[in-house]
Amino acid sequence: MSDIGGMSGERKPFRRIRLGMVGGGREAFIGGVHRIAARLDDRFTLMAGALSSDRVRARESGADLGLDPKRCYDDYRKMAQREARLAEGIEAVAVVTPNHLHAPVAKEFLRSGIHVICDKPLTGTLREARGLAAAARKSSARLIVTYNYSAYPMIRQARAMIRDGALGALRIVRAEYAQDWLAAPLEREGQKQASWRTDPARSGGGGAIGDIGTHAFQLIGFVTGLRVARLSADLDSFVPGRTVDDNAHIRLDFAEGARGTIWASQVAVGCENGLSLRIFGEKGALSWSQEEPNRLVHAPLGEAPRLVTRGGAGAGAEAAAVTRVPAGHPEGYLEAFATLYREAADAILGAPTSGETLPGLADGYAGVAFVDACLRSGRADGRWVVPALDPP
Amino acid sequence: MSDIGGMSGERKPFRRIRLGMVGGGREAFIGGVHRIAARLDDRFTLMAGALSSDRVRARESGADLGLDPKRCYDDYRKMAQREARLAEGIEAVAVVTPNHLHAPVAKEFLRSGIHVICDKPLTGTLREARGLAAAARKSSARLIVTYNYSAYPMIRQARAMIRDGALGALRIVRAEYAQDWLAAPLEREGQKQASWRTDPARSGGGGAIGDIGTHAFQLIGFVTGLRVARLSADLDSFVPGRTVDDNAHIRLDFAEGARGTIWASQVAVGCENGLSLRIFGEKGALSWSQEEPNRLVHAPLGEAPRLVTRGGAGAGAEAAAVTRVPAGHPEGYLEAFATLYREAADAILGAPTSGETLPGLADGYAGVAFVDACLRSGRADGRWVVPALDPP
Amino acid sequence: MSDIGGMSGERKPFRRIRLGMVGGGREAFIGGVHRIAARLDDRFTLMAGALSSDRVRARESGADLGLDPKRCYDDYRKMAQREARLAEGIEAVAVVTPNHLHAPVAKEFLRSGIHVICDKPLTGTLREARGLAAAARKSSARLIVTYNYSAYPMIRQARAMIRDGALGALRIVRAEYAQDWLAAPLEREGQKQASWRTDPARSGGGGAIGDIGTHAFQLIGFVTGLRVARLSADLDSFVPGRTVDDNAHIRLDFAEGARGTIWASQVAVGCENGLSLRIFGEKGALSWSQEEPNRLVHAPLGEAPRLVTRGGAGAGAEAAAVTRVPAGHPEGYLEAFATLYREAADAILGAPTSGETLPGLADGYAGVAFVDACLRSGRADGRWVVPALDPP
Amino acid sequence: MSDIGGMSGERKPFRRIRLGMVGGGREAFIGGVHRIAARLDDRFTLMAGALSSDRVRARESGADLGLDPKRCYDDYRKMAQREARLAEGIEAVAVVTPNHLHAPVAKEFLRSGIHVICDKPLTGTLREARGLAAAARKSSARLIVTYNYSAYPMIRQARAMIRDGALGALRIVRAEYAQDWLAAPLEREGQKQASWRTDPARSGGGGAIGDIGTHAFQLIGFVTGLRVARLSADLDSFVPGRTVDDNAHIRLDFAEGARGTIWASQVAVGCENGLSLRIFGEKGALSWSQEEPNRLVHAPLGEAPRLVTRGGAGAGAEAAAVTRVPAGHPEGYLEAFATLYREAADAILGAPTSGETLPGLADGYAGVAFVDACLRSGRADGRWVVPALDPP
Repeated sequence: MSDIGGMSGERKPFRRIRLGMVGGGREAFIGGVHRIAARLDDRFTLMAGALSSDRVRARESGADLGLDPKRCYDDYRKMAQREARLAEGIEAVAVVTPNHLHAPVAKEFLRSGIHVICDKPLTGTLREARGLAAAARKSSARLIVTYNYSAYPMIRQARAMIRDGALGALRIVRAEYAQDWLAAPLEREGQKQASWRTDPARSGGGGAIGDIGTHAFQLIGFVTGLRVARLSADLDSFVPGRTVDDNAHIRLDFAEGARGTIWASQVAVGCENGLSLRIFGEKGALSWSQEEPNRLVHAPLGEAPRLVTRGGAGAGAEAAAVTRVPAGHPEGYLEAFATLYREAADAILGAPTSGETLPGLADGYAGVAFVDACLRSGRADGRWVVPALDPP
Repeated sequence: MSDIGGMSGERKPFRRIRLGMVGGGREAFIGGVHRIAARLDDRFTLMAGALSSDRVRARESGADLGLDPKRCYDDYRKMAQREARLAEGIEAVAVVTPNHLHAPVAKEFLRSGIHVICDKPLTGTLREARGLAAAARKSSARLIVTYNYSAYPMIRQARAMIRDGALGALRIVRAEYAQDWLAAPLEREGQKQASWRTDPARSGGGGAIGDIGTHAFQLIGFVTGLRVARLSADLDSFVPGRTVDDNAHIRLDFAEGARGTIWASQVAVGCENGLSLRIFGEKGALSWSQEEPNRLVHAPLGEAPRLVTRGGAGAGAEAAAVTRVPAGHPEGYLEAFATLYREAADAILGAPTSGETLPGLADGYAGVAFVDACLRSGRADGRWVVPALDPP
Repeated sequence: MSDIGGMSGERKPFRRIRLGMVGGGREAFIGGVHRIAARLDDRFTLMAGALSSDRVRARESGADLGLDPKRCYDDYRKMAQREARLAEGIEAVAVVTPNHLHAPVAKEFLRSGIHVICDKPLTGTLREARGLAAAARKSSARLIVTYNYSAYPMIRQARAMIRDGALGALRIVRAEYAQDWLAAPLEREGQKQASWRTDPARSGGGGAIGDIGTHAFQLIGFVTGLRVARLSADLDSFVPGRTVDDNAHIRLDFAEGARGTIWASQVAVGCENGLSLRIFGEKGALSWSQEEPNRLVHAPLGEAPRLVTRGGAGAGAEAAAVTRVPAGHPEGYLEAFATLYREAADAILGAPTSGETLPGLADGYAGVAFVDACLRSGRADGRWVVPALDPP
Repeated sequence: MSDIGGMSGERKPFRRIRLGMVGGGREAFIGGVHRIAARLDDRFTLMAGALSSDRVRARESGADLGLDPKRCYDDYRKMAQREARLAEGIEAVAVVTPNHLHAPVAKEFLRSGIHVICDKPLTGTLREARGLAAAARKSSARLIVTYNYSAYPMIRQARAMIRDGALGALRIVRAEYAQDWLAAPLEREGQKQASWRTDPARSGGGGAIGDIGTHAFQLIGFVTGLRVARLSADLDSFVPGRTVDDNAHIRLDFAEGARGTIWASQVAVGCENGLSLRIFGEKGALSWSQEEPNRLVHAPLGEAPRLVTRGGAGAGAEAAAVTRVPAGHPEGYLEAFATLYREAADAILGAPTSGETLPGLADGYAGVAFVDACLRSGRADGRWVVPALDPP
């Protein structure tokens, strides 16, 4: 089990990374999650923010968090420029704005040599993603995308088992991401989260596919290593008046011969945050659900299924490396998110082994390309579309 | 709770129906299930059989069951003709042969005025189904198809709740039927069940879609009342050398505007008989799984989900009518199958209310048309196909 | 998988045993269960009954079941005497009366040389049990007690695993049997089942401990082979006015050194028929719940727990011998009950191997002695009591 | 949902409390948990520590955490005295030593006017607890005991529902705390955690009852408000050579008339951290398990059970107040622990409402008295013992 700040045997000189944040002021959601995640393993100190573009809210939101008022900005450009010049300026920035701002904000900080930890999807549109890709290539700083679900210990376990051949050749991948919080027209009641996420201008065109479908897509790639050769998407907008998809059925044909499906829905009544993944190979199967993240069911062909638990006897090194407390002491969403931040800290400080599991430009770009392909297929009555998943 | 032979308040003069069986000899599977189902509520007596076309096996199989040797046939035609003439000849026959024999056998008995209780799918091909439909229309006898999963008490409960508006307008229907018994090439080892079910000539062309996909299709219609307007099917044969599908992803567009999917697989390692159904409407959702059939989860929009159990406080009249033992005393597969036989007995004896829930020609024909449409869509890379679900 | 009437390889000349029944008329519960159980595997034919001591009800109840009116008795003594003399008289009788009548009825039939299949508990009082034991010893006929839960396939599996040492020396046994149907004073509303079960004169003194606690007690012995050296019982009557226990906490010290507990309750709101068993040894543990009877969790020390399913890869010969349909097709309460009848048939016909799993006088007597010891301990504020479990 | 640092509507001037720690150096477990918990909601800054009594380990452990070397002590007395005099000395200290040191350390800091956040059990012996109670009464500083399980949102929900009468008069309380990590003689292999926890001199005499049984005991009182009138305990030491209990069955008679049981075991193979609580009243029941902490099952008498989830429609204000992320995003062990620290911060800063849910001297003392009573009952073959639960 881990002690604070790293696993035993991996100790290194203690050092906190100076962090800034863009977005995440009062009434925002994901900003608070990023702050807890950054703090949990004690690898970051939040020192500056452009928490809002509204001057008063920016200042008050900073005060809530104990920030130095001089480092509470209402303009992310000023923040990037000034922090880059400070002797003890921020080394990394968390970008937690609505999707359409990811690209301009991230580019600004990358240009200033400040590492970017960006919420997903990477950008709202494929065009923005291309521009950001170019900026990232030119920058000495890292671009990290918080596909947080890939940091769950049992997801790491699943990835390792598949890589090591426990399932043989893969045949079928079934992913779901079902929620119900948009089952009613919340956006018409002025709910802030609902408003921007159902507004194509701010979300980037995708609704459920961008907000949650990309998580499922990334998770499939992360765990299986399979590559999507083509896809077909049926998109629905069940709630009257809604102009983005709130339900999507997506079929995936993998280059390796396997078949996959993603169901992403935000109108699935009774589903809270129902992200699940089932993978079937010729020699076995794995099943995992985000709402019970500490367990992974492994069914070897012709044997009784096994319940592999975080911290338990069946869990291997990859899971152990991101485990903080013993088996039976549930770790959850925030811990997995914090693991991404821990790994980001390692990457920023140049630890050699961290790159493999940390989502960056490639994952981020592929996610935007996935949404783009889904939108194209959806508009064409579900015809097969070949997504261009690699950044230019 | 029910006493034997019928619910209290529904008693009628005791009378057992004389039953015959075609197929179901030694080493067969589903024949034994039909016999238990017929016997469980004491509404039938098995009196004759063409249990095998092999003379010795037919006789020995009959002896195993205590049949009068004179009523053990090796030819179903002779059986139909002779039994129809006997004073105490059979009144109904269970047809439990491989699929390709359903049509000729059923036609023979219908022609003889003997009621037919036929295993699903109704026939192997749509052409046979058309012929059988014609025969059924001409006969005074009933044609019943054992879509047994529609007889589970909690399925009856779900159907009643949807009919009564508990879910509002339906939006999404997700059905799965996942097994793993064909994950390896069992048919090459001479396993009898695997052999005929993977042989297009005997199965009728469909593999998983015919064997289990039709169950999911029928269940969707039974529970929701929705009508499929078009469908798209991706069919796979993952096991090398297999010539029928062993995995299918099917999309359904319903005439009423809802979307549906069926996943039918016989290579889903770790899945035993994983038939499940989830239905989402604008006001609520229902979730049911055949492997835990005594419970139904009802999630009303904006309220805590409820666990409705067979015999429990949340179950209504439709569920109670097919419940034998109190809540917490699990009823299973055989009891649901027996309920179909009980309702078949009521129908044969002319009870007025039984027709609604008893699958007959319409369900049977629609199932074959569904398989046919899936095969056509599958051959055309999943293009949308409009199935002709009504018998001519 | 089994075909009807016995497992493959175990076929024998087909022969149905002629069965009678005492108790089980209209409005009774367990009589109907016994009849389905007797019929399910086609090993018995019900031919006679003293279904009620009320003449009209006896006759009408018999007519409901298609019995010959001449063999519908209103006096079990007459029935025993007359049937014993008939050429084709009954060979066995099911005793499904309230507890206080078990002893006199069973004795009468044993004296007549007719095999007795008696519901549990064997008798209402220890004194009656002694008398019945003496009668059983003198009779050529068999005495069988329907401790039906011991016939579940996964219970057979658990028993075999423990016998074969999979758990090592046993340490802790935790059994529960929790229901809620007596949480309110149902007996005051004239509910028939509640009335006799809460009436000490008809139940025998025990409430929950006799009605359901004995099941848990028998199941522990059946599965573990452990022997209770002493016990301590805290009995409660939570519902005002109730004179028998409706809740019991019982501690068991086993002769072999293990510790056990039984919780039996009929006021546990939300529990339907919550019989569960957990057994912990030095090398592993097993966990089973009657409401999901087709699965058994096996946790080997230091390994990931396994899910053993009826019909699945982890199930052995003992489970297979009492399995009718394949894995994933749930078998339930009635099937397990039917297995006892199947084994009773084998025993009556003299099959050599059936005796071991079939509960008889020893189990029946021990159950009554258990209730007696619980009542004594309960009256003495839970002091330790040594039960005399062996029949004299 | 909560933003970071407090719920909306509860904002207050941002201020971090200066925290010290005694114990919790390298290889310790619970110290790391306290540090994450203190940090998660950003209400504390760790500034000093006596992390070990070994000078080198104290310094190195401090360096791991980025502590100022001048504030890394190897003697808690020196630490208390010096920090009390520093202008920016610590305001509170976390005590995370083995049990036998809790009393002397806590007394030292209380005497210095420094708030104490002490791990459970409060002390090793009742005598120490009396001394600490006296010290606490004399001090202006607060004594807080980290009974962390009482901070789970669904536990708060359960407490509120019972207080508000949802269950009516309580009848039965069933608590379990089952682990398996001491199923083998780990203490003989030099495992540090096992060594002190099975050493009566350092644990205080209790084994499983002190380590985990107290958690269950405290949780029962916290959730139900019931008061134990007497108890009876059967203690086992199953592992050869072990001198403290590794398994305990405890019966509780509550003053209000309800009955309770606790099963605490550290040899229950297959159980990881199986703390569960079931509570049955005349009008309903609640069921909760720590390993799936985000759900609470509520069974109202005569209605379908409901699944109440953290953040979901059925959760009330008490649960919402300690909820950080939306429903379906699992919160776990560390979040609940952090909630205690958040509430400790509120209490230290004088927030008026925090006292009620924060365990302090009373809970701490009662826990030690509970262990003491169990040991006395256990030595007397389980006789009933009246515990003196109130501090003198």
